[in-house]
Amino acid sequence: MSETPDPPVEGRGRGAGAASPEAGSAGAQAGPLDATVTPNAQLPQLDQSSLSALAEVGRRWGGCMPAREVWEHALPIDPGLDFADPQRSRAGRFVHIRSAGAQTDDDELEATVRAGQADSRTGRAAYALRRVLIGPALRSTAIAEERMGRLLALPVLSPDALSSVAYGPEAMMAILVLAGAGELKLSLPIGAALAVLMLSVGLGYRQVIRAYPHGGGSYIVASDSLGSQWGLLAGAGLIVDYILTVAVSVASGVAAVTSAIPSVASATVPIGLVVIVLLVAGNLRGAREAGAAFAAPTYLFVAAIALIVIAGLIKAASHGFHAAAPAPHRATEALGVLLILRAFASGATAMTGIEVISNAVPVFRPPEAAHARQTLSVMIGLLISMFVGVVLVAHFDGASPGRGQTVLSQIAHRSVGSGVAYGFVQLATTLVLLVAANSAFNGFPRLLYFMARDGFAPRVFLRMGDRLAFTNGILVLAVPAAVIYAGFGGQTSPLIPLFAIGVFLAFTLAQSGMVAHWWRHRERGWRSALATNLLGAVLSALVVVIAAITKFTQGAWLVAVLVPVIVWASRRVHDHYQRAHEALTPRPDTEEQAPPGRVAPPRLAPQVSERLAEAGDDPDEVYSFAVVPVAVLDLAALHALAYAVSLGQPVLAVHVSPTQAEAERFNRSWQAWGDHLPLEVVVSPYRATVAPLANYIAALHRQRPDVTLTLVVPEIVVAKPWQRLLHNRIAARLRAALVAYDGIVITTVPFHLPR
Amino acid sequence: MSETPDPPVEGRGRGAGAASPEAGSAGAQAGPLDATVTPNAQLPQLDQSSLSALAEVGRRWGGCMPAREVWEHALPIDPGLDFADPQRSRAGRFVHIRSAGAQTDDDELEATVRAGQADSRTGRAAYALRRVLIGPALRSTAIAEERMGRLLALPVLSPDALSSVAYGPEAMMAILVLAGAGELKLSLPIGAALAVLMLSVGLGYRQVIRAYPHGGGSYIVASDSLGSQWGLLAGAGLIVDYILTVAVSVASGVAAVTSAIPSVASATVPIGLVVIVLLVAGNLRGAREAGAAFAAPTYLFVAAIALIVIAGLIKAASHGFHAAAPAPHRATEALGVLLILRAFASGATAMTGIEVISNAVPVFRPPEAAHARQTLSVMIGLLISMFVGVVLVAHFDGASPGRGQTVLSQIAHRSVGSGVAYGFVQLATTLVLLVAANSAFNGFPRLLYFMARDGFAPRVFLRMGDRLAFTNGILVLAVPAAVIYAGFGGQTSPLIPLFAIGVFLAFTLAQSGMVAHWWRHRERGWRSALATNLLGAVLSALVVVIAAITKFTQGAWLVAVLVPVIVWASRRVHDHYQRAHEALTPRPDTEEQAPPGRVAPPRLAPQVSERLAEAGDDPDEVYSFAVVPVAVLDLAALHALAYAVSLGQPVLAVHVSPTQAEAERFNRSWQAWGDHLPLEVVVSPYRATVAPLANYIAALHRQRPDVTLTLVVPEIVVAKPWQRLLHNRIAARLRAALVAYDGIVITTVPFHLPR
Repeated sequence: MSETPDPPVEGRGRGAGAASPEAGSAGAQAGPLDATVTPNAQLPQLDQSSLSALAEVGRRWGGCMPAREVWEHALPIDPGLDFADPQRSRAGRFVHIRSAGAQTDDDELEATVRAGQADSRTGRAAYALRRVLIGPALRSTAIAEERMGRLLALPVLSPDALSSVAYGPEAMMAILVLAGAGELKLSLPIGAALAVLMLSVGLGYRQVIRAYPHGGGSYIVASDSLGSQWGLLAGAGLIVDYILTVAVSVASGVAAVTSAIPSVASATVPIGLVVIVLLVAGNLRGAREAGAAFAAPTYLFVAAIALIVIAGLIKAASHGFHAAAPAPHRATEALGVLLILRAFASGATAMTGIEVISNAVPVFRPPEAAHARQTLSVMIGLLISMFVGVVLVAHFDGASPGRGQTVLSQIAHRSVGSGVAYGFVQLATTLVLLVAANSAFNGFPRLLYFMARDGFAPRVFLRMGDRLAFTNGILVLAVPAAVIYAGFGGQTSPLIPLFAIGVFLAFTLAQSGMVAHWWRHRERGWRSALATNLLGAVLSALVVVIAAITKFTQGAWLVAVLVPVIVWASRRVHDHYQRAHEALTPRPDTEEQAPPGRVAPPRLAPQVSERLAEAGDDPDEVYSFAVVPVAVLDLAALHALAYAVSLGQPVLAVHVSPTQAEAERFNRSWQAWGDHLPLEVVVSPYRATVAPLANYIAALHRQRPDVTLTLVVPEIVVAKPWQRLLHNRIAARLRAALVAYDGIVITTVPFHLPR
Repeated sequence: MSETPDPPVEGRGRGAGAASPEAGSAGAQAGPLDATVTPNAQLPQLDQSSLSALAEVGRRWGGCMPAREVWEHALPIDPGLDFADPQRSRAGRFVHIRSAGAQTDDDELEATVRAGQADSRTGRAAYALRRVLIGPALRSTAIAEERMGRLLALPVLSPDALSSVAYGPEAMMAILVLAGAGELKLSLPIGAALAVLMLSVGLGYRQVIRAYPHGGGSYIVASDSLGSQWGLLAGAGLIVDYILTVAVSVASGVAAVTSAIPSVASATVPIGLVVIVLLVAGNLRGAREAGAAFAAPTYLFVAAIALIVIAGLIKAASHGFHAAAPAPHRATEALGVLLILRAFASGATAMTGIEVISNAVPVFRPPEAAHARQTLSVMIGLLISMFVGVVLVAHFDGASPGRGQTVLSQIAHRSVGSGVAYGFVQLATTLVLLVAANSAFNGFPRLLYFMARDGFAPRVFLRMGDRLAFTNGILVLAVPAAVIYAGFGGQTSPLIPLFAIGVFLAFTLAQSGMVAHWWRHRERGWRSALATNLLGAVLSALVVVIAAITKFTQGAWLVAVLVPVIVWASRRVHDHYQRAHEALTPRPDTEEQAPPGRVAPPRLAPQVSERLAEAGDDPDEVYSFAVVPVAVLDLAALHALAYAVSLGQPVLAVHVSPTQAEAERFNRSWQAWGDHLPLEVVVSPYRATVAPLANYIAALHRQRPDVTLTLVVPEIVVAKPWQRLLHNRIAARLRAALVAYDGIVITTVPFHLPR
């Protein structure tokens, strides 16, 4: 069910300097096909038309302010922090690096890992604690190009899919038993139908790999082929399902433990919550290095299922394949089409995670696509064998759900007894379920990253923590998952009706997207590919409809409400970002259409040129200067720069970049504008923004504590409180970080967004 | 137990313009003798030496900046908001008033009640809701000079004392019965001892009235005569006891209800919490108008006790004063000195509130002191009669505590049956207990006001809400009282051991203070007065010791821990304010001792004078101006003014005063400094600061929306987070209020406090 490999090992394209075919040059707009992750996405970029508007703005400014050399000459401090006593200025927090860009001959500063450390004693202690808990910070370049062979990729990418064998058959049988234990035999034909479904959807995803050889989840495929509206629908389905995956996998994993050790059954909820907390902690650390370790549980689980299935079948053969009668169970519902369909929809939960491999094609060693398709085929084969095997053995053993232990535990007892082998089966089951839950912690933040990159989710989901993990996405997944887990008392069965709808919605949209893709592109062999995807789409849609109708009153209504709500919220977020982007982007500045004072050049008192020149000649005569942090050279930044210039004091602009590529991009817009003011670029390879900026400004201040430093911060002011969540509150955070320094005056220049 | 009258009807002295003998002129420093309440206390004032230091600072500034006329001429807006289109500027929020001070010929602005209203739609709705819930805002001058005659003052000031008859005798008997029902007869001698104690303490407080004819609670008397350390101890005792008064009175009032209607006994806690919420709501509205209405319950209660006591004694006489045997009760503890002392200490809880009248002398019609002493004598007489009467009748009736109803309810049943008369007794008891709880809501915020005025409590307790109630004090009382009430399950008896220690600690310190006072002053008749107070002090101290020892393990240890903690916290608060005051107060500015840049005059570029003069001649040539809100002309404000001046733009200082007297005081310091810059004083008779300031600045901005308005806010930065609670965060609140206006740039000039 996960939209991402575990571990996610992208990094092709812009972030790492190498360009993926779709991404184009380092400065190109991220297209919907681009499934790479880079820290640059945080800073929106200016398109060609706004760059030329910027140039126009710059020309008008140039006419009414002193030349850059005058400004540079007037600065009472050295922006390069390169002066006599390194101890007092840089203190190991910044090092010089050669600029990658050709346009400027200044070298840049790079923030070291210590630049993220606050200056106060509590700040240092908090930093040390953080390092102990989640490990040393990682450079952006550590988004490595690790590739996996097929033998490693299979177990790493399949736990989500394979582990659902632990609860899928049981979920199906739990419905059938409602019509009495005698009807459990219907699990055979229904299981067969599910096997067909698995095969069809699996083949469909082989086609996805063919069309998106650089990886594409349902959100990306549907957005690309069907339009963003359908992509959002797929994304909303996946969001709901990631949350449920965590809840169901943890519940099911804990059930495997409580089946083996019934005495801890009363602590189900606390155990599960502790597991979720551990998963969060592990993922905040960035669990990528555990990749190989995570492979073991999958193989163990496959081995365990093989063990009990083979042992069970041998036993059944010795009885002439005569099925044992299941424990009697009073029928509470009549057998009918609806019940059978419900059982089918419940069993379909075993198919979550089938699409993971198609998202993760770049993870494979070349030829990626071919390897991925081979691995997917093996996984589908394993999934079908294990699923069918478990259904068969459960049938022969006469297992029936809901007797204080899981069906898997029952047939394990029957097949291998209650000794070491049984313990091994339960342990492997628990481990693979936890690994499956963990894969949601990789997939969910990545989905939100892509949605945020396209403006459909808050930008905080673009921010990678100092361990290259998406901190915010991890936390936003864990909280609702924990609430749902605890709210349902840690039980798997009441969660099953909510499950599956989201996954199959995503399946349907991805397969439909592929149908549209083949129809449009008509590459070699498009007809059979289209037919395969069409079958997958129709069958998946059927499951969505069946699940929605048969389980509506058992909880599916909640999904039916949540998915549209998520789509609606995403669209509101997108609308806001769109309006914000329009309001912030420089447009050609004609007298008639520009709102008063919008991009107007700064108004300077006469004689400022002379005064600045004099100030440069006698630095002791400078009493104050202004520093303007600029993230993107948009109208809010120009506003703040104009205000700073109008003060008639020396001005220094500072830009913090997560990567050198982004720094270069910023430099281009600065040059386009006309390079009117001194600029210092600080590259922050650990991606922190506020702390290195605050430390840099403090280092400037320490050079000349007698001179008042006015920090002029552009601040975006939203019209409605909820919109605050959509913007980094850099001004407020800088204020909090720099208020400790005497002699630093903090000015916020508000920029109001419409509505 | 309350340190204040109910309702508090002060307002003599500075606030109202009339000077009480101690307070001196309108600008005098509040001495410890000053027991008046005024909104001016929020703004600390400068003493003579800092005024002359200010003058010195001003002289140095004068040498290096343009004259005030130049600055005034340059302003692009009219600070008086007096321009063509009144609709757009003032919008009914500000009116002109003649300045009371003689030094300036400008008139001042007064903020109308609408100035407290925010501009946004939600702001207006919140304002309207507030007015509906707590009523229209009240002007500061509404701290009226209502005086009371003795017949009204008695019931208004005595509910706290008299109502304790409802639980005091029972508390005593609840201890005696532990030694078996037979020992309940000991309530007679112990009751007699308590009557002696009441008489002695009461006579002592008559002497307090003599010495402090303008009112003085234990905190003020002990601070004045024994030093602030002892005053703090008394204050800490009172703080604990106010909280317990609310909890015990509410618990006891609810018990009177549940005794009459046993079926609601299970809802004890919710009922009590609702009562506390209603008390908070009533007091936030400012319950002063209810004064006369609050008198009725007291008279009703006195009548009710008289009824049952007289009826009970007549009945007893008819049986030849033969005591009925109380219901048998198994002894769980042996009778001993310790048990008797514990019973004595528990009974002493009946004495809470005895000092209220001595705090409230200014409430009486003249001759205040004489009337207060007469009223106190009557109250003591009533208290002793009622207490002794209840103890006697309980003895004759053979009542014993703890049989599902209160002792008072038992003897009421015996004396007057179960009809209307019984209902009347229980109703009167409930009402008087609620009025007593209410009196804590008057006394506690006033105590914190005095402590805050002396720098021993956070300054937020000086702020009066727009209904003239001390909002913060009311809330800080209600929350712990509600927690304790609910934590003890709404029961009176487990709270009794915590009670009394605080009151008697305060009694002891007040009486000891009086001893010191008489010894020092030796006025006419000082010997007998000293003897009276000495006896009161010794007896009160004895009760403290007895209560602390005998009840230590039953909860008194909590009080023994809390009181020192409160004293310690108060001293830390005081230390911080002291250091802050030292750091903020202008001192003579010698080159050698001034820290760099501290009070240094602003450094201005050459030609600023000419530019400002030109700007005044052609207002369209002004692109920006600065507004500096100044609460007190301390170093933080001078810092901000210097920064604003150094920008070389026109500058306007704004001061918001709660009263005209305070405005005048501020004007004096402004004149002392040299009146270098344009100043606008806004009088805010509804005491709000931030909202009128924000609305005023918005009105300035609306005059010239094309001109950038830079708001330069002095911000006090503390070294430790907890100290933030001790300062109004005006800068942050202004920022939040003004961020909605495009074109207003907000600058904070930090001023760092040491440590």
